Amino acid sequence: MKAHLTRRYQFPASHRLHRDEMSDAENRDVYGKCNNPHGHGHNYAVEVTVSGQVDAKTGMVCNLADLDQFARVNVIDTFDHANLNCLPAFAEKVPSTENLCIEIYDIFKRGFTRAKVEKIRIEETSKNSFEYSG
Amino acid sequence: MKAHLTRRYQFPASHRLHRDEMSDAENRDVYGKCNNPHGHGHNYAVEVTVSGQVDAKTGMVCNLADLDQFARVNVIDTFDHANLNCLPAFAEKVPSTENLCIEIYDIFKRGFTRAKVEKIRIEETSKNSFEYSG
Amino acid sequence: MKAHLTRRYQFPASHRLHRDEMSDAENRDVYGKCNNPHGHGHNYAVEVTVSGQVDAKTGMVCNLADLDQFARVNVIDTFDHANLNCLPAFAEKVPSTENLCIEIYDIFKRGFTRAKVEKIRIEETSKNSFEYSG
Amino acid sequence: MKAHLTRRYQFPASHRLHRDEMSDAENRDVYGKCNNPHGHGHNYAVEVTVSGQVDAKTGMVCNLADLDQFARVNVIDTFDHANLNCLPAFAEKVPSTENLCIEIYDIFKRGFTRAKVEKIRIEETSKNSFEYSG
Amino acid sequence: MKAHLTRRYQFPASHRLHRDEMSDAENRDVYGKCNNPHGHGHNYAVEVTVSGQVDAKTGMVCNLADLDQFARVNVIDTFDHANLNCLPAFAEKVPSTENLCIEIYDIFKRGFTRAKVEKIRIEETSKNSFEYSG
Amino acid sequence: MKAHLTRRYQFPASHRLHRDEMSDAENRDVYGKCNNPHGHGHNYAVEVTVSGQVDAKTGMVCNLADLDQFARVNVIDTFDHANLNCLPAFAEKVPSTENLCIEIYDIFKRGFTRAKVEKIRIEETSKNSFEYSG
Repeated sequence: MKAHLTRRYQFPASHRLHRDEMSDAENRDVYGKCNNPHGHGHNYAVEVTVSGQVDAKTGMVCNLADLDQFARVNVIDTFDHANLNCLPAFAEKVPSTENLCIEIYDIFKRGFTRAKVEKIRIEETSKNSFEYSG
Repeated sequence: MKAHLTRRYQFPASHRLHRDEMSDAENRDVYGKCNNPHGHGHNYAVEVTVSGQVDAKTGMVCNLADLDQFARVNVIDTFDHANLNCLPAFAEKVPSTENLCIEIYDIFKRGFTRAKVEKIRIEETSKNSFEYSG
Repeated sequence: MKAHLTRRYQFPASHRLHRDEMSDAENRDVYGKCNNPHGHGHNYAVEVTVSGQVDAKTGMVCNLADLDQFARVNVIDTFDHANLNCLPAFAEKVPSTENLCIEIYDIFKRGFTRAKVEKIRIEETSKNSFEYSG
Repeated sequence: MKAHLTRRYQFPASHRLHRDEMSDAENRDVYGKCNNPHGHGHNYAVEVTVSGQVDAKTGMVCNLADLDQFARVNVIDTFDHANLNCLPAFAEKVPSTENLCIEIYDIFKRGFTRAKVEKIRIEETSKNSFEYSG
Repeated sequence: MKAHLTRRYQFPASHRLHRDEMSDAENRDVYGKCNNPHGHGHNYAVEVTVSGQVDAKTGMVCNLADLDQFARVNVIDTFDHANLNCLPAFAEKVPSTENLCIEIYDIFKRGFTRAKVEKIRIEETSKNSFEYSG
Repeated sequence: MKAHLTRRYQFPASHRLHRDEMSDAENRDVYGKCNNPHGHGHNYAVEVTVSGQVDAKTGMVCNLADLDQFARVNVIDTFDHANLNCLPAFAEKVPSTENLCIEIYDIFKRGFTRAKVEKIRIEETSKNSFEYSG
C-alpha cells in the first residue's frame, strides 16, 4: 500500500547564468540571453514527491501540514523573492535550475523524515522543467 | 513497441477526513481544516495510465472508447457528485485521496483487461496530487 | 492612468443544490446530480477585480497585502473547507455559485475601500465560471 | 462584424520594487518582499487584445504575422530576459506590473496600426494579473 | 441581480485557410503556414457567455443542462471531429477562427432563449483567442 | 548528479485514423469519430525528456539552444501545420498519436547526441496523452 504524494510550491526569484572563470564571449555563447547583465527571473514551481505506506489509521502518506511547515522554513523562506546568485548555496555554483533542483532535493533529503523523499521537479517556465532524484 | 496511454477524468465530490475511533482533538490535530464538520469538497481529476504493445493494425494501445466506457460505468457513475464518506468503499476507511487512489486503482485492475493498468494519479487540488501503482 | 488588478484565491468547499420548498422530483429535475443527497464539492477559484488610479509614487492600484488581508479575514476564513449549505449566508438561499458570487461581491463591496471593487468571478470547475459586478 | 483577437506572449524578466525617495523602512512597508535587495523575477505573460472588422476576403481581424513581428521588435526584444529596473522606461518610474502594462500599451498604441489596440493584460504570477486599456 | 455564466466546450477539428479567388502566392502571403496544402487542425475551446437575472427560487442564471443540450445538438454535433472547410457554413467563407466565432455566436443567438447570449470566445491555441459579441 | 530536463513544443496538425485494408464499417467501429472523412486536428504538445550529468562548469544537462535547434530542424519543420496522413512517415502506418510518439522518439534517438533521450510524451488533447521510451 505504498503511495506517492506530490506537493507544489511556487515562488518568484531571479538569477543570472554566468561563470567568472569563463570569458564574456564564452558566457554569452553558453548561456545566450540567460547571461544578460543584471539578470532576469522566473516564477519557479517546485514539486516535491514523497512516498510511503498509507497509514491504516489516518489514510495518509504523511501529514501535509508537516510537509508544508518543513518546506516553508527550509525552502520558501530562503528562495522566495530572492536573487539566487546572491545566496550562499550559489556562491560557488551557477544558479541553473538543474543546480536549484539538486540544492532543494538535498535540503528535503537531509531534513524531512516523515516520508521518503523521492524527487524534486522544478518548472522554470511553461516550456522547461527539470527533475532530480539523487 | 510498448507505449503508455493516460486518460483524464474529472468529477466533483465531497469528503470529510475524520475517524470515529480518534477523539475530536486528535482528529483536529491530524486532519486540520479537512476535519471541519459537514465536510468540504474538490474537483477530483483522475488520470489512469495503461500500457501495451501498439497494435500493428490499429496503431493503438487500446481503444479509448473501451476505456471510457469502463471508467464511466465503474468509476464515474459511483464517485461523481458523491459524498465519499457515504459510499460503501469508505465505510471502514477514511476517504483520503490516498485511499481514493487505491480504491480506483483496484477497480481498474480487477476489471479492465484491454491493456495493462499501470497507475492511478489523482489531483485533489492544483497543489496536491497522489499516485498509486499497486 | 486607471488600471485593473485581479487577484485569485482558491479554496475547497462543498454544497448541495436543494430547495425545501420544492418537491424531491422538482429538485431532481432542476438540479440533476447537483441535488444528490449528502452534497458534493469543488475547488472554488475566486477572482476579485479592483480598479483605480495607478499611484504615481508607489506604481500600484492598491497594496496586494491589504487586499490579501481583507480577503483572508472576510472571505477565506468563512468559506474555506466549509459546507456552504451550513453557513448563515445560505440559510435562506440556495448555495449556487451564482449566489456565492453575489455574496462574495457584497462582502468586498461593503468592506474593501482601498480600490474600487469591479467584479467577482468564480470558477466552479474547469468548464464553468460565473461573474457578478453589481 | 467586429471581432476581438487576443495574442499571448511570454518572457522572463526581473524587477525590484523600490523608490529612492522613500526611506528603507517605507519601501519595506509598501512593497514587502518585492523590495528584497537584488530583486526577484517572473515569467511575465503579456496578452494584447486588438479589435476590428473581420475582413470579408481574408476572414481575419488582422494578420497575426504582422502582430507578432511588431511585438517581437518593439516589446519582446526589449523586455525579454531583462532587469526591468535597468531599462530607460523605468528610469523614473517603479517597474511595477501596473506600470509595465501602461508602458507596453503605449508601445502598441503608438506603433501598431493594423487593428485597434484595446487592452494589455499581464499575468505576473498565476495569482496576479493587471489590465490597462488607456 | 444579473450575473454572467460562461460554459466551456472543447472539440478537435481541422481547417485550411485558403481562398480560391486569390493566387497561390497571395494565399501563401496572407495565411503563411495556415495555407499549407491538406490543412492542419486544432483543439478548439469554445466558451459561451450568457447573462440573466439570478432566479430567486433556483439560484441560477439558466439551467446548465439546457445549455449543454442546446450546445450538443446545435454546435458540437456539427463541428466536433470535422474538417471545417467541408461544412456548409464555410462553403462561401474562409474557416478562420474569427468566422467560426461569428458562426457559433449566430447559432446560439438564433436558438438559445433561456438566457441572453452575450459572447462567444474561442481559443484556437494556447497563444490565440478570438471573441465576438454581435 | 544525473538530472532530467523536459522541453515542451507545440504545433497544430491534422490527421484521420483510417486503414485502407479495413472495411468502412470496421474503420468506423475501431476509430469512431476519429475516422470522420476529411480528418480533424489537434494542437499537439510534444515533451522530450533527456538526461545526463549536470556539467560541473555550466550547471546544465545540455544546452537548450542545441535541443531547440535540433527539434526545430528535425521535428517542428516536418510536423507543424501538416496533415499527418500525407507525410512519408505515415505512408504505411496510421497516424495515431501512439505512432507519432514512436516516430518522434526515433528521430531524437537517432540524431540528438548531446544528452540521453529518455522519453517522448505527447498531449493530443487536455484529456489524452501518450508516452514512448523505446
